[in-house]
Amino acid sequence: MTKDYSKAGKNWKDILHEIIFEADTPGGKVFDVILLIAIILSVVAVMLESVAKIKLEYGHVLYIAEWVFTILFTIEYVTRLLIVTRPFKYAISFLGIIDLLSVIPTYLSLIFVGAQSLLVIRSIRLLRVFRVFKLARFLGEASQLMSALKASRPKIIVFIGAVFTMVVILGTLMYLIEGGENGFTSIPKSIYWAVVTLTTVGYGDIAPQTVLGQGLATLIMILGYGIIAVPTGIVSAEMTRQKPYSPVSTQACPHCGAEGHDSDAAYCKKCGGHL
Amino acid sequence: MTKDYSKAGKNWKDILHEIIFEADTPGGKVFDVILLIAIILSVVAVMLESVAKIKLEYGHVLYIAEWVFTILFTIEYVTRLLIVTRPFKYAISFLGIIDLLSVIPTYLSLIFVGAQSLLVIRSIRLLRVFRVFKLARFLGEASQLMSALKASRPKIIVFIGAVFTMVVILGTLMYLIEGGENGFTSIPKSIYWAVVTLTTVGYGDIAPQTVLGQGLATLIMILGYGIIAVPTGIVSAEMTRQKPYSPVSTQACPHCGAEGHDSDAAYCKKCGGHL
Amino acid sequence: MTKDYSKAGKNWKDILHEIIFEADTPGGKVFDVILLIAIILSVVAVMLESVAKIKLEYGHVLYIAEWVFTILFTIEYVTRLLIVTRPFKYAISFLGIIDLLSVIPTYLSLIFVGAQSLLVIRSIRLLRVFRVFKLARFLGEASQLMSALKASRPKIIVFIGAVFTMVVILGTLMYLIEGGENGFTSIPKSIYWAVVTLTTVGYGDIAPQTVLGQGLATLIMILGYGIIAVPTGIVSAEMTRQKPYSPVSTQACPHCGAEGHDSDAAYCKKCGGHL
Amino acid sequence: MTKDYSKAGKNWKDILHEIIFEADTPGGKVFDVILLIAIILSVVAVMLESVAKIKLEYGHVLYIAEWVFTILFTIEYVTRLLIVTRPFKYAISFLGIIDLLSVIPTYLSLIFVGAQSLLVIRSIRLLRVFRVFKLARFLGEASQLMSALKASRPKIIVFIGAVFTMVVILGTLMYLIEGGENGFTSIPKSIYWAVVTLTTVGYGDIAPQTVLGQGLATLIMILGYGIIAVPTGIVSAEMTRQKPYSPVSTQACPHCGAEGHDSDAAYCKKCGGHL
Repeated sequence: MTKDYSKAGKNWKDILHEIIFEADTPGGKVFDVILLIAIILSVVAVMLESVAKIKLEYGHVLYIAEWVFTILFTIEYVTRLLIVTRPFKYAISFLGIIDLLSVIPTYLSLIFVGAQSLLVIRSIRLLRVFRVFKLARFLGEASQLMSALKASRPKIIVFIGAVFTMVVILGTLMYLIEGGENGFTSIPKSIYWAVVTLTTVGYGDIAPQTVLGQGLATLIMILGYGIIAVPTGIVSAEMTRQKPYSPVSTQACPHCGAEGHDSDAAYCKKCGGHL
Repeated sequence: MTKDYSKAGKNWKDILHEIIFEADTPGGKVFDVILLIAIILSVVAVMLESVAKIKLEYGHVLYIAEWVFTILFTIEYVTRLLIVTRPFKYAISFLGIIDLLSVIPTYLSLIFVGAQSLLVIRSIRLLRVFRVFKLARFLGEASQLMSALKASRPKIIVFIGAVFTMVVILGTLMYLIEGGENGFTSIPKSIYWAVVTLTTVGYGDIAPQTVLGQGLATLIMILGYGIIAVPTGIVSAEMTRQKPYSPVSTQACPHCGAEGHDSDAAYCKKCGGHL
Repeated sequence: MTKDYSKAGKNWKDILHEIIFEADTPGGKVFDVILLIAIILSVVAVMLESVAKIKLEYGHVLYIAEWVFTILFTIEYVTRLLIVTRPFKYAISFLGIIDLLSVIPTYLSLIFVGAQSLLVIRSIRLLRVFRVFKLARFLGEASQLMSALKASRPKIIVFIGAVFTMVVILGTLMYLIEGGENGFTSIPKSIYWAVVTLTTVGYGDIAPQTVLGQGLATLIMILGYGIIAVPTGIVSAEMTRQKPYSPVSTQACPHCGAEGHDSDAAYCKKCGGHL
Repeated sequence: MTKDYSKAGKNWKDILHEIIFEADTPGGKVFDVILLIAIILSVVAVMLESVAKIKLEYGHVLYIAEWVFTILFTIEYVTRLLIVTRPFKYAISFLGIIDLLSVIPTYLSLIFVGAQSLLVIRSIRLLRVFRVFKLARFLGEASQLMSALKASRPKIIVFIGAVFTMVVILGTLMYLIEGGENGFTSIPKSIYWAVVTLTTVGYGDIAPQTVLGQGLATLIMILGYGIIAVPTGIVSAEMTRQKPYSPVSTQACPHCGAEGHDSDAAYCKKCGGHL
């Protein structure tokens, strides 16, 4: 089948595929930039709607904008499903699911009335921002970053495990030293405080009052200040080892919509279809 | 003796040893996962007990859970002692002591009644979390991290010494500049503030009020922001120098229970017994 | 024309050019140091004027100082324009624009009276500080730093994009969890809080109060603590790859005033004029 | 003269020199450890004296301790001067000045009576802590750290200059946006706030209240979070380039007291005297 495809002339499906899925042609570039602007505008609209003063005055405008963007994104999603050779593969891919989740909440808000539940739905719609990164992936730099992070993943998991253990023990010690009257009302809250301190965030909503507590806090702070070196060292070493930049094609597979193929790749690495 | 052992057939001690001390066989894997879940559940129970509202309602359930976990861990500890060829070596090893400390507090709470003392005992039980890291050690990545940290230890000690000196001098200067009326009531408290500032934690419970104090604080902050580069540089350089990953065996010594042997090791590096 | 120039004897234009634009000759060095001190003094004067108590007492002295510095810098700007062979190229260069912006605000304050607007104008004058970096550029080290940052720019943009997306989603989640009664009054404000937390700044003006909110905050903090490793790793790797120091000439082009030429350069890399 | 010295037998001066200035012989080691403990105890005494409650109860004990330590350190300082071949060179060396400054304040407190002035004098005595680092210098690791920092000094100065400029401009902008009613009462105070934010310290004593102010704060935070990578990258690269550890002798020059000679050095690198 892949052979037939490569010999066949360009029909409307191929043209649409190039515009919607790829960024090589002028048409594809224009489509991607417009899509990007639409996503940003729709996210800004959701944000503004949450500001009480703005909602009071421009609530209806934002409501209309919400529906216009939802309908546009729905048309886009259906078109993507139609022009891909293997629609099911696209539908269950990460990008496919994100595309679907970007339009569902507004429709759901019609059935389930109520301000509180509606708000929860809106937040999921913000995942739409992820689509912006389609462009980033084309840069090749992102894939290099990813492979460096992937290579250092086991070390980072060990590190986070160690940090978690430290935080549990130090938080419990602090709970015993300071006690409820100084804000350390329970072990979970004291662990929350230990994380705030170890990561050098330091809100100051809970702070040690006793001499012993401040002594232990001093220790935790110096510890946190020092061990930040560990994840940094891991990633730095991995980055230094990385091979120089290898370009990644901006072409998406016409069969399943997978992206991130090497520039010299002839077949999709996900479904094996001819590119 | 080691020769006899290698020729002998597998008796119940060997089988139990493989299940409890190793993670190579299916039985060993299942045992380790169950143990891990039990440890996490018991730690969560201790945490929940510290929340006043939860203790009021589910206090008796948590009390029973505490005893069930303690008895299970006691049985496990005794079994470990029985099946190891050199029980004393295991008992005084780091893991052996942690295993013992994980069960003692609950028994001690029977003799020494009283809420306050009981709480102190509970915190030691949290060390049980360390057992979770048995799995991590198998990763080999942890040992690589450790050797990088060990190699950079002298440099880090020098760095921490320098930071400590800076903090003592800057804290005293701040005590003289700001004085008691602005919260800098004593030199130790001012040093505590200097650590909070230098490590970029910044609670804000104590903050300079005078112009001179804010000037010195600015200096300390930029200093702290800059010298974080030193430990990071040390560890990064060490990580970059590190040799690539060498696999570590998941097998534990049948004689003393020591772990972390190289995959091609035939004899225990701690007691010399045949693996 | 460039040939004629190189053969011609040194006239007053050449001498002034060497003093004002270069730092090789004794006269040039003296001029640069005096200019630097004048810039710092004028910036300090603007700062002091903003302190209510000082303005009340020394307001008129600072007003005179402001005018003296402005007139001096105006004379300097006009001289620069006169002695450069291609004045227009200098006027539209980055340094030329900064030089002009350093003197305009004081003149504008004569036409547009009013305290508030005057203040806005003063702040632009602070850009004058950038001139201080003329000296820094001569060090060659700055150019090395710049090239390392330039090489890692695409990776850093991808990273900042990822951080921005995370902050938008996490801020919205926090807005839904905590709600207006705990200070998270709108999505933009919650995103502001997420940035405060992820970057480990942690003011504490807004802090989560619910258990779920503190749980999510814990996650954001550990995330922020960990991903700081990414930009650090990028720049570290780039710096390690950097070639050793190559000296940069302190000579400026006599035609367009461009700086930062290599020490063996014979022609301006910006306008092609003979150096 | 150096030839005569190397041939001569060991007199009391040589023996005392070995004990006081070197850490190779058992006598020298014992002396150094006792000195270290005495310094720490005297610093702790100064710290405790600053705590109001402790001073009230143990004030006279601490007063006696202060004098005992001062007399001991004075004897030590005079002995050092007597046994060194070139006493003036030692007296004006960094360590010599620190040794003198460690004893002067107590004597000065006899002439200039008054609590406030006495406090200022005490803080200088804390510089005594620097003597602790004599031991650190012997480690050779400290000298390696120092050479890495020295090599990256010009880059770090450029970086701090850039940070300073950013902080001045951003602080002024914030002063104009937020104004006095939100705590940004003057440009210097706003610059203080900008440093608190850029270095990710974040006290929270001053925090932006307007939407525009919070927007700019968000930018400063992300900037501060990102540019921490620059000093870290500089030091990491320098550390990676560093040659492996070269041992440093613990022997001090018998003529001028200089330390840190290479283990194969035969003559003092400071005064040329035979070691």
